[in-house]
Amino acid sequence: MTAAVRAPRQDRSRVTRQRLLEAALECLADLGWSNTTVVVVAERAGVSRGAAQHHFATREALVAGTISHMSELRRAEIAAHEGVPHSTVEVLELLFGFYSGPVFRAALQLWVAAAADEGLRALIGPLEAELGRQAHAMAVELLGVSEKEPGVRETVQATLDLVRGLGLAALLSDDDRRRGRVLRQWARTLDDVLPRQRKR
Amino acid sequence: MTAAVRAPRQDRSRVTRQRLLEAALECLADLGWSNTTVVVVAERAGVSRGAAQHHFATREALVAGTISHMSELRRAEIAAHEGVPHSTVEVLELLFGFYSGPVFRAALQLWVAAAADEGLRALIGPLEAELGRQAHAMAVELLGVSEKEPGVRETVQATLDLVRGLGLAALLSDDDRRRGRVLRQWARTLDDVLPRQRKR
Repeated sequence: MTAAVRAPRQDRSRVTRQRLLEAALECLADLGWSNTTVVVVAERAGVSRGAAQHHFATREALVAGTISHMSELRRAEIAAHEGVPHSTVEVLELLFGFYSGPVFRAALQLWVAAAADEGLRALIGPLEAELGRQAHAMAVELLGVSEKEPGVRETVQATLDLVRGLGLAALLSDDDRRRGRVLRQWARTLDDVLPRQRKR
Repeated sequence: MTAAVRAPRQDRSRVTRQRLLEAALECLADLGWSNTTVVVVAERAGVSRGAAQHHFATREALVAGTISHMSELRRAEIAAHEGVPHSTVEVLELLFGFYSGPVFRAALQLWVAAAADEGLRALIGPLEAELGRQAHAMAVELLGVSEKEPGVRETVQATLDLVRGLGLAALLSDDDRRRGRVLRQWARTLDDVLPRQRKR
């Protein structure tokens, strides 16, 4: 096989894998863990069962791949916001976005399923830890605060716990107005209590 | 049938129903919605299938009964705390308790399943609303604040969103020390920003 023939074939394989991962994320977010099987995902991706099983031989392999894919999506999202100055309430809206999109909904389905499934828990533990670290680092960066100041680390964590709680509430009954009021009031509180470094 | 015979029979029936509801709550919390069927619940309760089906003909009837049971448990929990004075951090610990026990874990399994199931969503909408109202009323009462003051309502809501977020985090990786630090810092913030009425 020449290099010219090998390259497009590798590209096609990469595209198929990518489509499967995107479909798996959607399935998790929309249908939940118990309905996310390799067969269902292959169908949603418009990929043959055989091709799907070539990439992901088991449901566990598929979920492991999807977890990496979720971390990557999150990193890309964060990179898009780095260095952009934001008001406190804009930062809170951005952080809330982390706990409301398809990545969060998919992760939530996995987390809740894992609460009743030890094998799944071992598989997704690292995902939970990474998403948490990513969100924390982004909150510190965007709020422009130093964690060396007393109480700052805990206040940043409380902020992330707050938006996580809002994300869970939004899962069933999305109430934009209530959330807007809570976030604006929270922004005022943060502006009062957080010693900003005003790096920008 | 004489009254003397009827009464114990009614009692037995009530006891059986109660055992089924308790088993259903445990099943939801431990095994998730997809594994909570009338058969599984009957087995856990040590009740025959026939008796279980006499009380709850369908899975929907069982979940509706369990939802009422959850609201009752929560009301009893709240009644036990009424009128007792608490420091801010003790209030936060109490509120966190609402988002960490079996009732919360069972509700979470239902909520997350409902995100992917319209029929279930209609069934549990009222539960979500009631648990939210109960927690809010209790937070206002225990913190001893007035919602007529500007920003108080939103700060109380933010507090509940925060403990809900902590509850979700605790589902997988319970980190008592982190949570203790967040709650203590949050209590300090509340003491600074909330105009307390100091009713007690």
